[in-house]
Formats: sequence, C-alpha cells, structure tokens
Amino acid sequence: MILLRSHIGSALRAARIEQGRTLRDVAKSARVSLGYLSEVERGHKEASSELLNAICSALDLSLSTILADVANVVRAHEAPLPTLQVVETAA
Amino acid sequence: MILLRSHIGSALRAARIEQGRTLRDVAKSARVSLGYLSEVERGHKEASSELLNAICSALDLSLSTILADVANVVRAHEAPLPTLQVVETAA
Repeated sequence: MILLRSHIGSALRAARIEQGRTLRDVAKSARVSLGYLSEVERGHKEASSELLNAICSALDLSLSTILADVANVVRAHEAPLPTLQVVETAA
Repeated sequence: MILLRSHIGSALRAARIEQGRTLRDVAKSARVSLGYLSEVERGHKEASSELLNAICSALDLSLSTILADVANVVRAHEAPLPTLQVVETAA
C-alpha cells in the first residue's frame, strides 16, 4: 500500500542526507525532538502540517517542492506493472 | 501559514462537489465517519495516510493526482507577493 507518510519521510530524509546534515541538527533547527524527526523520516509517524512546515523550513525546502517530488514518486508507484507474458519453452 | 491538511481537505472537497456527491455517500464508500470526512475536508483534522487512501479511492482519484494539485496550489501560495511601491502624491 502506498502511504503518504512513508514518501514524505523518504523525501525529507533524502533532502537531509543530501545536505550532509544530522538528524540532531535538523531536529534542533525545526524545534522538534530527534525521536519525532526520526519517526517521521522512517514513515512511522504522520507529521502534523505545522511540524512538516517546520521541518521543511529547517531544510530550507518549500513545502511545494517536497509535495511535487512526492507526487512524482507516488505516481511511479501507482503506475500499472508492465504486462508479463508467460512463454512456454522447450526443456 | 500554509497548512498541508487545509489544502488536502480543499482538494478532496472540490473533487467530491465536482462529482455531485454528498459527504454521507463518500464517507460510506471510504468507510470513514461522516464527521471525520467533514473535519478532514475543512482542514481541521489531519487525515492519516491510510484514510487518505480510502477517501481518494472512494472518490476514484489517485493519491498522486491530489498531491500534484495540492503542490500547485501550495506553490501559488508560496509565491512572494508583488512588490508594492509607495508613491507620495500631492493632496
């Protein structure tokens, strides 16, 4: 099942790693607990809209950028799998 | 402040109205309570990822479509206001 919180978490984590920052640093800057940020990044906890804004701001990312990225990833997951054709071959 | 839940709620509400459906109908189809759906639509409650999927499914909308729409609306809200120039005029 596609879960929005998982994809948002992955996008936030990817942005943090790309910036070479630690959980501790971003959590402090966003004024959230390290445990909360970690749970959000791993998709274990739904970020409230207010705290999502705080985390985006700490990462210097706009909410719309994260959402557009997540929309693209979710779209790729929603795409139907290519049809597989089963072909019988001689043993 | 731009709140994700408000924009998701508005997008869900707009889709429901466009389909000419009632809160009761969509809530039943999504197996959520009418009160919950109403709160989500008004941006008063954060929809959990699971229930967001159920509501999208009840509306026959993909999650990525809603997210892309919301990303666009949020981007428009994030745009800086045009610079206003104060001009002194003779009375």
